[in-house]
Amino acid sequence: MSPLFGKSLSVLNVGIGSFADTVARCGGEALQLDWLPPAQGDRAACDALAAVLNHPAVEAANAEALARYLTSQPKLVGIGTAREVVPQLEERIILHAGPPIDWQRMCGPMRGAIIGAILYEGWADNAARAEQMAQAGEIVFEPCHHHAAVGPMAGIISPSMPVWIVIDAAGGGNAYCNLNEGLGKVLRFGANSAEVVARLKWMAHTLAPTLRAGLAALGEIELKPLMAQALHMGDEVHNRNSAASALLVKRLVPALLKSGAPAADVAAAIEFVAGNDHFFLNISMAACKAMLDAAHGVAGSSLVTAMARNGVEFGVRVSGLGERWFTAPAPRVDGLYFAGYSIADAAPDLGDSAITETAGLGGFAMAAAPAIVKFVGGSAQDALANTLAMTHITLARNAAFTLPALDFAGTPAGVDLRRVVDTGILPVINTGIAHREPGVGQIGAGVTHAPAECFAQALKALAAEVAG
Amino acid sequence: MSPLFGKSLSVLNVGIGSFADTVARCGGEALQLDWLPPAQGDRAACDALAAVLNHPAVEAANAEALARYLTSQPKLVGIGTAREVVPQLEERIILHAGPPIDWQRMCGPMRGAIIGAILYEGWADNAARAEQMAQAGEIVFEPCHHHAAVGPMAGIISPSMPVWIVIDAAGGGNAYCNLNEGLGKVLRFGANSAEVVARLKWMAHTLAPTLRAGLAALGEIELKPLMAQALHMGDEVHNRNSAASALLVKRLVPALLKSGAPAADVAAAIEFVAGNDHFFLNISMAACKAMLDAAHGVAGSSLVTAMARNGVEFGVRVSGLGERWFTAPAPRVDGLYFAGYSIADAAPDLGDSAITETAGLGGFAMAAAPAIVKFVGGSAQDALANTLAMTHITLARNAAFTLPALDFAGTPAGVDLRRVVDTGILPVINTGIAHREPGVGQIGAGVTHAPAECFAQALKALAAEVAG
Repeated sequence: MSPLFGKSLSVLNVGIGSFADTVARCGGEALQLDWLPPAQGDRAACDALAAVLNHPAVEAANAEALARYLTSQPKLVGIGTAREVVPQLEERIILHAGPPIDWQRMCGPMRGAIIGAILYEGWADNAARAEQMAQAGEIVFEPCHHHAAVGPMAGIISPSMPVWIVIDAAGGGNAYCNLNEGLGKVLRFGANSAEVVARLKWMAHTLAPTLRAGLAALGEIELKPLMAQALHMGDEVHNRNSAASALLVKRLVPALLKSGAPAADVAAAIEFVAGNDHFFLNISMAACKAMLDAAHGVAGSSLVTAMARNGVEFGVRVSGLGERWFTAPAPRVDGLYFAGYSIADAAPDLGDSAITETAGLGGFAMAAAPAIVKFVGGSAQDALANTLAMTHITLARNAAFTLPALDFAGTPAGVDLRRVVDTGILPVINTGIAHREPGVGQIGAGVTHAPAECFAQALKALAAEVAG
Repeated sequence: MSPLFGKSLSVLNVGIGSFADTVARCGGEALQLDWLPPAQGDRAACDALAAVLNHPAVEAANAEALARYLTSQPKLVGIGTAREVVPQLEERIILHAGPPIDWQRMCGPMRGAIIGAILYEGWADNAARAEQMAQAGEIVFEPCHHHAAVGPMAGIISPSMPVWIVIDAAGGGNAYCNLNEGLGKVLRFGANSAEVVARLKWMAHTLAPTLRAGLAALGEIELKPLMAQALHMGDEVHNRNSAASALLVKRLVPALLKSGAPAADVAAAIEFVAGNDHFFLNISMAACKAMLDAAHGVAGSSLVTAMARNGVEFGVRVSGLGERWFTAPAPRVDGLYFAGYSIADAAPDLGDSAITETAGLGGFAMAAAPAIVKFVGGSAQDALANTLAMTHITLARNAAFTLPALDFAGTPAGVDLRRVVDTGILPVINTGIAHREPGVGQIGAGVTHAPAECFAQALKALAAEVAG
């Protein structure tokens, strides 16, 4: 022992930091290693990881799924009414964000938005009756994701709402998303007043047909080039869509003027769209859904194809694991709150918009959008760091989406379940924050992370499929 | 001597690098200091520098000039016809970019553009006759800058052209700029074909009145907030105006639709404006001219209030030195050339657009616009480095224009003649490159620097005024 105690200590500490602290306090040098055991020490998940890491079937499946994601070509082709274009919509169904959830367990904003949708559809003529119907099981509730669709925040799509139609010109399926209502008191944050319902009706009866006429005059819009251009203009096309929305306006307006739509409607539509810097978000989401659905369903693939939240649970779907959801409690977001609100007022994380992060955009592409830190918190350096961190849990770079600040490196592309569990680095998500009560609306925005537990569960399921 | 030669050398070398190289080759350590003598060793300029550095009168004058520049509030208020709004326009005058120059010494693109302007005005009905008139002294040529105006590249403004009217709401004067014609064969790059002249006529007879009606419906546009927003969207508002142009379209379109202007003209105007990512450049230039004219004319101030090029000479004006120009030969730009062209085809540096750099934008704000390196060359790191370098030759930061990638630090504001001469750091300029022959147009873009000689001359003049 004496030689050891005779020398000054030079310590590398792994695990509990207080061991290193003690050495340092006594004048020694100690370096604390930033390391966690894989799967946060979950033994079964570690075994699953060992079973699928470098597994030839998984590697081949991932190569296939990744190629499908990278080569997908989402195009905006039009606007339809949900009941006419979204697959398998029953008469009295309402689609919602995130994994499946029944009325009893839903969060406040989702309930508020559903009541608004029932009023909008005319199934009830007051909120109390609407709530009764929902409670009594008179309405079917299913995730948007089960219908090739996505919706931000509460993510409510009811049959007579207009939806964007995005096709994958590379041969994948269609994807759908509702239209963005703007900020303030809006359905997606749980508001359902007469003003909210009236706006939704105007959107269905005036905005949607006008934009449809404009799109018909313009032809299809290839979305990846437009999103790529927006990334060069400070957007990450999730929580910052200022550039993409402006680019859309620039494309749409000349077509709208030629479309033959009534001049007053054209003027009103343009004013509405030009006044909403988030207008493109819902198109971005549909594009991301199309890219990821193209990658979905490759047996053995550990590629994550959806991350979505219903305000109670955070759910993940994986290319090789079919229609199953792997869920964990949705976190509350420690973000930047509007004056007068705090995390105590927040609903847990909510919305399908994390489809953008799943597709390597949003938080994954924060290096493109340093100005977003004024909205979601942090510094410009954090924005770069978030993007760089995501390279450790993704399979490749997406050459279609380049990041000027990183000398035009592509966005981190294709979240690999195995790498998330192995490294403990969790997918970063830029998100809006809804008040936990229905009707209040947005109270902040922030940066959050997907819960580790979803990925550990999914990995065990994948190991059972592949190696089991 | 022996103690020195007995030890190993540790050398700090200033000046000629080969001294350090020799030490290193023989196994010693030598650090080469990146330093040049002030004024590149020009003794008279060094004396001038010594006379005005920390001079209380100069410091006080600069504080005043800087405050005027920082508090100016350029607003876009309308569009007028040059002869009606630009001060002191004679009947047969043509304004051009840069310092004064006569026809005999003008570069190809400026001559080409002047011939185009003569045809556009109807003073001659063919190019040969137009050239004859110019040659014979039948036309007066004066710098835009002598008429509160600026123009990109050749910078040609003739009496019946429409011009943007920018006022300084903080009490400074008005500033004017012509309207951007788009890319390709355009007057400002020296093209003068029938197509070019026809476009200018359409701009005067249709575009300008339509936009004027839209602006009347919209009211004034405060330009600093719009430019600040564009800086957060990847523009530096000199060679990259994609975001600012899109933001302008978003603001203008709803107003145009309400303006009562004929629908066909509105549609044509919107299509023209929305199709030109550089459309905002000329408004940005007028805004910068207004900010800097506010700072001009403070006796003793070493603040640079204009940098401009006529394709032969680069000229500088200084707040405390009145209407004088300090000139040096304009450099050719070693930039990114379009396929088939090289620096041998280039006209020397040309245009009043360096007014944006003088105002702390353009090359000074490259940190906002990493994507511009695809257009002007270099890496994203170079873009940051250019902005940081400019902080050494400026008096302050402009809090109205923040840079997200530098954690919202302001743009470097107020070029101080003394610091340029002292440090040898030259103002960086992002610029387009014109072919040296008239009629060819743009052949590239790049990053260049103002010539040191202008600043040394101006400093001597300032020292003579202040200390002499």
